[in-house]
Amino acid sequence: MRFTFPLMAIGLEVAMIVLFGLFVQYEMDQNVSQQPNSTKSPTVDVDRYLDLYPLFQDVHVMVFAGIGFLMTFLRKYGFSSMGINLLIAALGLQWGTIAQGILQSHGEKFHIEIKNMINADFSTAAVLISFGVVLGKTSPMQMLTMTILEIAVFAVNEYLVVEVFGASDVGASMTIHAFGAYFGLAVAGILYRSSLKEGHRNEESVYHSDLFAMIGTLFLWVFWPSFNSAIADAGKNQYMAIVNTYFSLAASVVTAYACSSLLDSRGKLHMVHIQNATLAGGVAMGTTADMANTPHYAMIIGSIAGVVSVFGFKFLTPFFTTKLRIHDTCGVHNLHGLPGVIGGLASIVFIALETADTSAMAMQAAALGSSIGTALVGGLVTGP
Amino acid sequence: MRFTFPLMAIGLEVAMIVLFGLFVQYEMDQNVSQQPNSTKSPTVDVDRYLDLYPLFQDVHVMVFAGIGFLMTFLRKYGFSSMGINLLIAALGLQWGTIAQGILQSHGEKFHIEIKNMINADFSTAAVLISFGVVLGKTSPMQMLTMTILEIAVFAVNEYLVVEVFGASDVGASMTIHAFGAYFGLAVAGILYRSSLKEGHRNEESVYHSDLFAMIGTLFLWVFWPSFNSAIADAGKNQYMAIVNTYFSLAASVVTAYACSSLLDSRGKLHMVHIQNATLAGGVAMGTTADMANTPHYAMIIGSIAGVVSVFGFKFLTPFFTTKLRIHDTCGVHNLHGLPGVIGGLASIVFIALETADTSAMAMQAAALGSSIGTALVGGLVTGP
Amino acid sequence: MRFTFPLMAIGLEVAMIVLFGLFVQYEMDQNVSQQPNSTKSPTVDVDRYLDLYPLFQDVHVMVFAGIGFLMTFLRKYGFSSMGINLLIAALGLQWGTIAQGILQSHGEKFHIEIKNMINADFSTAAVLISFGVVLGKTSPMQMLTMTILEIAVFAVNEYLVVEVFGASDVGASMTIHAFGAYFGLAVAGILYRSSLKEGHRNEESVYHSDLFAMIGTLFLWVFWPSFNSAIADAGKNQYMAIVNTYFSLAASVVTAYACSSLLDSRGKLHMVHIQNATLAGGVAMGTTADMANTPHYAMIIGSIAGVVSVFGFKFLTPFFTTKLRIHDTCGVHNLHGLPGVIGGLASIVFIALETADTSAMAMQAAALGSSIGTALVGGLVTGP
Repeated sequence: MRFTFPLMAIGLEVAMIVLFGLFVQYEMDQNVSQQPNSTKSPTVDVDRYLDLYPLFQDVHVMVFAGIGFLMTFLRKYGFSSMGINLLIAALGLQWGTIAQGILQSHGEKFHIEIKNMINADFSTAAVLISFGVVLGKTSPMQMLTMTILEIAVFAVNEYLVVEVFGASDVGASMTIHAFGAYFGLAVAGILYRSSLKEGHRNEESVYHSDLFAMIGTLFLWVFWPSFNSAIADAGKNQYMAIVNTYFSLAASVVTAYACSSLLDSRGKLHMVHIQNATLAGGVAMGTTADMANTPHYAMIIGSIAGVVSVFGFKFLTPFFTTKLRIHDTCGVHNLHGLPGVIGGLASIVFIALETADTSAMAMQAAALGSSIGTALVGGLVTGP
Repeated sequence: MRFTFPLMAIGLEVAMIVLFGLFVQYEMDQNVSQQPNSTKSPTVDVDRYLDLYPLFQDVHVMVFAGIGFLMTFLRKYGFSSMGINLLIAALGLQWGTIAQGILQSHGEKFHIEIKNMINADFSTAAVLISFGVVLGKTSPMQMLTMTILEIAVFAVNEYLVVEVFGASDVGASMTIHAFGAYFGLAVAGILYRSSLKEGHRNEESVYHSDLFAMIGTLFLWVFWPSFNSAIADAGKNQYMAIVNTYFSLAASVVTAYACSSLLDSRGKLHMVHIQNATLAGGVAMGTTADMANTPHYAMIIGSIAGVVSVFGFKFLTPFFTTKLRIHDTCGVHNLHGLPGVIGGLASIVFIALETADTSAMAMQAAALGSSIGTALVGGLVTGP
Repeated sequence: MRFTFPLMAIGLEVAMIVLFGLFVQYEMDQNVSQQPNSTKSPTVDVDRYLDLYPLFQDVHVMVFAGIGFLMTFLRKYGFSSMGINLLIAALGLQWGTIAQGILQSHGEKFHIEIKNMINADFSTAAVLISFGVVLGKTSPMQMLTMTILEIAVFAVNEYLVVEVFGASDVGASMTIHAFGAYFGLAVAGILYRSSLKEGHRNEESVYHSDLFAMIGTLFLWVFWPSFNSAIADAGKNQYMAIVNTYFSLAASVVTAYACSSLLDSRGKLHMVHIQNATLAGGVAMGTTADMANTPHYAMIIGSIAGVVSVFGFKFLTPFFTTKLRIHDTCGVHNLHGLPGVIGGLASIVFIALETADTSAMAMQAAALGSSIGTALVGGLVTGP
């Protein structure tokens, strides 16, 4: 038993190296010119690559430092959340590169670009979101298994949403946030033990653990515009995704604070809302980040997300624990689940208002259904 | 009373959404092309936009994470400083976008660009600086009011400095740092209670709160070159602003450490100086960041700022509290007030030495006077 | 005695200002055009400069925030590590600019560019690595002396490696990491006192100090691809250096966790390994970051580095302390020393496998020997 984890980790790393050797290679041809200033068409890719690297780095900070620190708010789980977060993300980005690449290349060798690295980080983000639900209930070894299984399901769902349905989900409200949350909740439903009902002493924050969590909150908050725009089309779409997310987040802060105070009997602000609900505007903006053509639309989405998230923490999380027997350690459903669903619904409403293209609306609905459905099925299968 | 804060916050957010609906729109015309590599003139804006986004993100980290963590050094105010900082900044960036945009467009609808987001972040920075003076003396609701009033005055002063006087203040030593500091000091003068004279137990740092504050210091320190260059003219000016700030900050670290040790009876270094005075070189470099044409000039400015800042903490802050009855919680006057004034004066000296253009010198002096004057008047009006 | 440190610091700052006045100037000529979109050759430099600034900022975060926080894991040395780290880096970047610039210009005046700032930050990184060995054993004044001496030796070794041997070390496995580690170890050998043998109570981590250290780990981890690619040739080489480092780091996380658990009697993970050995893949990838033409090669390097680093912490550090009478406070040898040597050896193996160019192999070996040799001699001279 003592050697199961190390042997499994080393075995997985060896498998990754073999898979990379078989499938992954660099762009070696002429179209990666060394003269980025030339105006000939082949160099468009180089410029595009240089444009994406800062966005990639912002996403990279969010996934590794942002999500990691966000989960340190529980005083006994600081080490688990930091340590296992890094392990999941490091294994996940390798496996995500392979799983997504092979699906897209239909089993052929494929080239790696900065965009693959962004997508690999995205696939690990889904697992880290699920990890927030089951934090404290699983061993490192179980997390290795969950990483492998969840990313496989994630890649299949993403393929369905993007390639089959042709749906739009640039900031991944549905494919990362809703998917990750419902996958985790399904796993947590399987793992439920009655002792979790009362909550336990580990699940308390202390003064400094709440400040560590704010490191996570703030870096996630600041870089979220990059998350929602990283894989958007260059130019106007990317610019709109950035600006919309910036204002959506700002609006969700104001409404989250208002609701936090409103729901407290003495009008106090709660740190768990400040840490989480302020980010709901980023999650909910994901799907429509490059569609919304006026910033006040983004602010309405963000405002709603902030309100829903705080109400979720106050009323839904206790209900889930006591009635549904699903214990959600970090309240992931309120930060990623509900706002992710809002993001998907917002895209349907937006298309209805703008073009009333029923086919596009149906595809967005299919994408939302697929993301939640594959997540629940995947989680129920993974749980045991 | 219990519902005043949430209702006010929601009311303000609704007002922002309405104002954005009336005034703010995206660039929808042809000049935002999707081919960033084309050399035709319309695409200059796209390239410019792509250049500014990394600088914007650096500024964004400074305002939200940097300033927030810098104020956590007081052991009892960690939550207030983090929480209220985020609220002020989120409301402030929306209101700042509107206030600056309407002034510049003379009441017409205006387009939003990354540069507007940088300027919106700048306007919130001024409020956050003032917040450092009054930390622990105000309620969240009072901070909402102060945010609205201060940003209005800020936008007017900025309009005066840039449009009316035609003065230069690329890194905003005068319009953000000096303005924010003196606005806060004026408010603090009004809010003075005699109990503040003795100081109180909340105003102590503990070991870990000092380390949290260093997160703020270091991210501010590292990204300050972006702050001072973000709205500089592209090319040479931006490059000079970056390099000058880099060396000015380095010099202020060395002289701040020297003075910190010099003024301690046993030669020890003080954390409050390490956290604050090391940044004085960035503040003082603001106005002349894109003027100074030799790096050693920047190092002289930075060296002076480091010395002045430490002496301010040692001698001026106690004097302000006991004699002037102005209680400056975070010592903002020593980090933003004095170095901001040095920045303004440096621009006058520099113009005198280089071109002796008396009209330009007068306009810089007017800008400095206006920044301090409007701040004091605005603060005295806001205080009650 | 009380005034030695402040006078020395001020004297050094004055010396830096004089040296900058004599040797350093901005690009004032026509080749820094203000029209970055033009396709004429002079503007290549501008575009190049704009490309490098985001990479510089990533490196800057690593040197100032990353390395600083990484060393806070010892509960009593949080302030020393943060405070002295900032002082060393601020003085070091000024002196590094001068030392490297004068050597390259052969004593003439030289222009400063973003690339000089990256190299200046690199030179301070070497000193900060050495500081990790001697943390807790030296005074701030001794660190000023060490900064000046070590950067001088560093610049000479770098000149030898790059200009004389023509060796390749784009991510500086040899010239920064191995150099810094062995310089520090040589100094520590001189400074050894028998009381260090038993270790002492200061050298313990506590819960929160370990979380602070994780801030350092994560920002180093996330930005390491920028460190290894910042001075690579633009285009393909830079892209390969980024991708290789990304996957090398991921692999070293997985193997480091596996070995950490393997070597613990109850299979537990150790924080010191999570904080340090996870970065070994970045160090070891340095020399071959822009050579390795398949990502799975990078993953093999990273996997080996993770294993070696954990074994070093477990077995070599105690051996160094008790047998060699060299006390390595932060275990720098295991993070920078051994992986740096692996990086150098990897370049020899890689050239042997790819081109079997014996002359190039010899030059890489000479570079590795020179880096370790000058470091040991420099450290032994500096120690007393």
